[in-house]
Amino acid sequence: MTERITCQWIAGQWVTGLGEPMRSETPYDNQLLWTGRSATAEQVEQAVQAARNAFLTWKLKSVAEREAVVLAFAEQVKENRAALAEVIAKETGKPLWETKTEAAAVAGKVEISIRAYHERTGERQRDAAGTQMTLRHRPLGVMAVFGPYNFPAHLPNGHMVPALLAGNSVVYKPSEQTPCTAEFVMKLWEKAGLPSGVINLVQGGSETGKALAQSAGIDGLLFTGSENTGHLLHRQFAGQPEKMLALEMGGNNPLVVSELYGDMKAAVYAIIQSAFLSGGQRCTCARRLYVPVGDKGDQLVEKLIQAIKMIKVDHPFADPQPFMGPLISKAAVQQILNAQSHLLSLGGKALVEAQVGKAAFVSPGLIDATEIANLPDQEYFGPLLQLIRYPANGEYCPIESAVDMANSTRFGLSAGLISTDDSEWEYFLQHIRAGIINRNRQLTGASSDAPFGGPGASGNLRPSAYYAADYCAYPVASMEGSTPELPATLSPGIEIE
Amino acid sequence: MTERITCQWIAGQWVTGLGEPMRSETPYDNQLLWTGRSATAEQVEQAVQAARNAFLTWKLKSVAEREAVVLAFAEQVKENRAALAEVIAKETGKPLWETKTEAAAVAGKVEISIRAYHERTGERQRDAAGTQMTLRHRPLGVMAVFGPYNFPAHLPNGHMVPALLAGNSVVYKPSEQTPCTAEFVMKLWEKAGLPSGVINLVQGGSETGKALAQSAGIDGLLFTGSENTGHLLHRQFAGQPEKMLALEMGGNNPLVVSELYGDMKAAVYAIIQSAFLSGGQRCTCARRLYVPVGDKGDQLVEKLIQAIKMIKVDHPFADPQPFMGPLISKAAVQQILNAQSHLLSLGGKALVEAQVGKAAFVSPGLIDATEIANLPDQEYFGPLLQLIRYPANGEYCPIESAVDMANSTRFGLSAGLISTDDSEWEYFLQHIRAGIINRNRQLTGASSDAPFGGPGASGNLRPSAYYAADYCAYPVASMEGSTPELPATLSPGIEIE
Repeated sequence: MTERITCQWIAGQWVTGLGEPMRSETPYDNQLLWTGRSATAEQVEQAVQAARNAFLTWKLKSVAEREAVVLAFAEQVKENRAALAEVIAKETGKPLWETKTEAAAVAGKVEISIRAYHERTGERQRDAAGTQMTLRHRPLGVMAVFGPYNFPAHLPNGHMVPALLAGNSVVYKPSEQTPCTAEFVMKLWEKAGLPSGVINLVQGGSETGKALAQSAGIDGLLFTGSENTGHLLHRQFAGQPEKMLALEMGGNNPLVVSELYGDMKAAVYAIIQSAFLSGGQRCTCARRLYVPVGDKGDQLVEKLIQAIKMIKVDHPFADPQPFMGPLISKAAVQQILNAQSHLLSLGGKALVEAQVGKAAFVSPGLIDATEIANLPDQEYFGPLLQLIRYPANGEYCPIESAVDMANSTRFGLSAGLISTDDSEWEYFLQHIRAGIINRNRQLTGASSDAPFGGPGASGNLRPSAYYAADYCAYPVASMEGSTPELPATLSPGIEIE
Repeated sequence: MTERITCQWIAGQWVTGLGEPMRSETPYDNQLLWTGRSATAEQVEQAVQAARNAFLTWKLKSVAEREAVVLAFAEQVKENRAALAEVIAKETGKPLWETKTEAAAVAGKVEISIRAYHERTGERQRDAAGTQMTLRHRPLGVMAVFGPYNFPAHLPNGHMVPALLAGNSVVYKPSEQTPCTAEFVMKLWEKAGLPSGVINLVQGGSETGKALAQSAGIDGLLFTGSENTGHLLHRQFAGQPEKMLALEMGGNNPLVVSELYGDMKAAVYAIIQSAFLSGGQRCTCARRLYVPVGDKGDQLVEKLIQAIKMIKVDHPFADPQPFMGPLISKAAVQQILNAQSHLLSLGGKALVEAQVGKAAFVSPGLIDATEIANLPDQEYFGPLLQLIRYPANGEYCPIESAVDMANSTRFGLSAGLISTDDSEWEYFLQHIRAGIINRNRQLTGASSDAPFGGPGASGNLRPSAYYAADYCAYPVASMEGSTPELPATLSPGIEIE
């Protein structure tokens, strides 16, 4: 790969970054994938100004015109889906079978977002005694979009497409760990004929991000990323209610297995898919697994251990395909190993020990955390599942105590129950606190045509998926008549002669 | 009136306030209407705790059960509408003809909120290849509700009814200027059979409010009130994205009159209704009036001056009824007089001078502010209209320059155009920034079945009117199957033996 000098896309021009050097390597064999330089604070301001200028004309286009551009982007994505899946696989290390679904989701988001725009926002009218009552929606202005590395194409796309449809312009700062994917996607927008400056790409790390978030010229910020950064942004936006800040952060997601878990292999499959898909690098991944004490639970745990040990971990293009690739970086691996050591030091037992491999590889781990008195309420963003055995009450282990434990998190993104019993499901549904609550299905893999997100520290508002439209436009209610009219009876106490 | 010792409604009990003495007087003749004592910080915590307890059972009721209670409240309001209109008139000084419409709006809000609950939130299901995809909505928890004095029944009701329908419980702090109306409405909830603690009333001023906003036990705060308090709350909630903070604040609303204003009397009527309804104490009131220079504008201004001078100002029960009563307090009158002096000192000319009367009466004023170089961007919450003449370009005064001036406010609540020309309306609609944009109709009197609010410093989100449902519940998306299932083909790299 040669050095990409012109890695910032500002006002429709590819320009040189003037900040710090950046590089992106394949996390499975450290091949150089991309180099460039970050955007300086000054360049971020140029990007914001470009977005402000573009906003003035983009917002005046008809919805149909904006839809046409966004649909043209979807066509570009479909035509280039193999190449997009490849670049995501190279940059994130996710297996190709999985990145193909991400590429498909990027294109699929367009049609769903158009539907959401019209259903949640859009325009409607009614007549009330000669006055036309019209509800329209207007864009907020310039939206800053912060994307994460785990779905470097799909997740920021889920902010940008609704923002553009509503008539906003965008300044997009991708994760500094996935600049190459971001650039690839921007070039598809360019090919789709997006007018200059409607999206501007600024590459960089936290300095670039701070400059963007602090810019006086943005009207809102749509964020998917870490809990820590999300909370910092929330403090930074204090006293500025006029700016939309919509945060999608993490989770510490519980999966509760009832004694009535049905087919054991199917239950184990649901657990594996929940905890280890994408190497555990999904916000919705199960982190805490609640299993009843006793024989039925023991059998399940034994089968689970066996299955975890057989999970294939390999590079994304390996044939046959692995279930998991490496993590995003060696630093991410180190965080998982640190978390494992910490849990063990607190009294946890490694049923399957996560083990470091070459490059950014780490094998999946399972820690029995039942004996840990104060389980840390941290999101460990990788393939490390914590097992908690919950107690019997007489002959049976009622799920109530597991639900209590499962709710003892400040997060609330996703939660699951594996149970064939309807009354347990009713109880779970009523008592668990989460924005995604599944029964007998994996926690990972949320539907794009449902809202996404959860209460508590998992975020405010719902900037991702179906309700994204709500946070990209404000309503304008109008009462309209073609002439001013003097009613037959004036309000009391008024005379106009 | 005797002293009301038991003026706090906590956990279904009327209890004594243990804080500072409070009193409410009629603003038109200073008759004592109500006395009590404010809730201390400790009592606020008791109220929050009562709401937490009540939430546990209220949230588990079916939507139909909650609807039944709220509908019973609407019946109580209808039965007692004359008494409610009377107490509002006594406490705010608004004319009885107007408070009757407020009482009707309180009852009318219920049916609209039920519709909004189901349309914006509610529940829906679809089947996807054996997996049931369900979207439900869940309450946030304990909602603090802060109400204003100008619509002391209708506006807090617009927060509480949607909050209750969604399954939240409430701690309600009304304006310290309208405790009597708040108590009256609470007694209607009590008669309607609202379970204990589902709403708790805490009376008091800023100390009581601070205690409530800072309570760790609230999950959100729905606010209608001043810009200043709203911004303070936004800073106070910094770093707590898990708490819903939805603010409805003020405006500095422009009304632009085109040269093509149609019937002059009708135009003047729309201006009077926009600027002086409720004595100018509506968030949506026109504050800045843009009128073209030249003969047509001069004629309109002359007619307007005449009409303002004829506005009847009297006590709320006067017969015949006045257009305006007094303001809420002498302090409010003083603020309007101060604003007038300030505008005059900056170079404004009093075309009609607002003049102080007895008690909290002040007559409506019109200040020509055209010559003021830097017009203060402040909301003057009373009957003081600022006139700005905008320039001709050749033979005609195009509205473009008026729209530019009208947009030079940090607020964005409402804006209006009086024009018979469709292309001017198209231009206005595209370029003015506001959440309510009317044509040839008064700015005041928004429809309850439309969203309410505006961008900029007028607030974040839309906690009032039709979109209130959005801020009272969070979505829960589920994938449900009655048993876990092992697919025919597992994901690559998994084996379960």
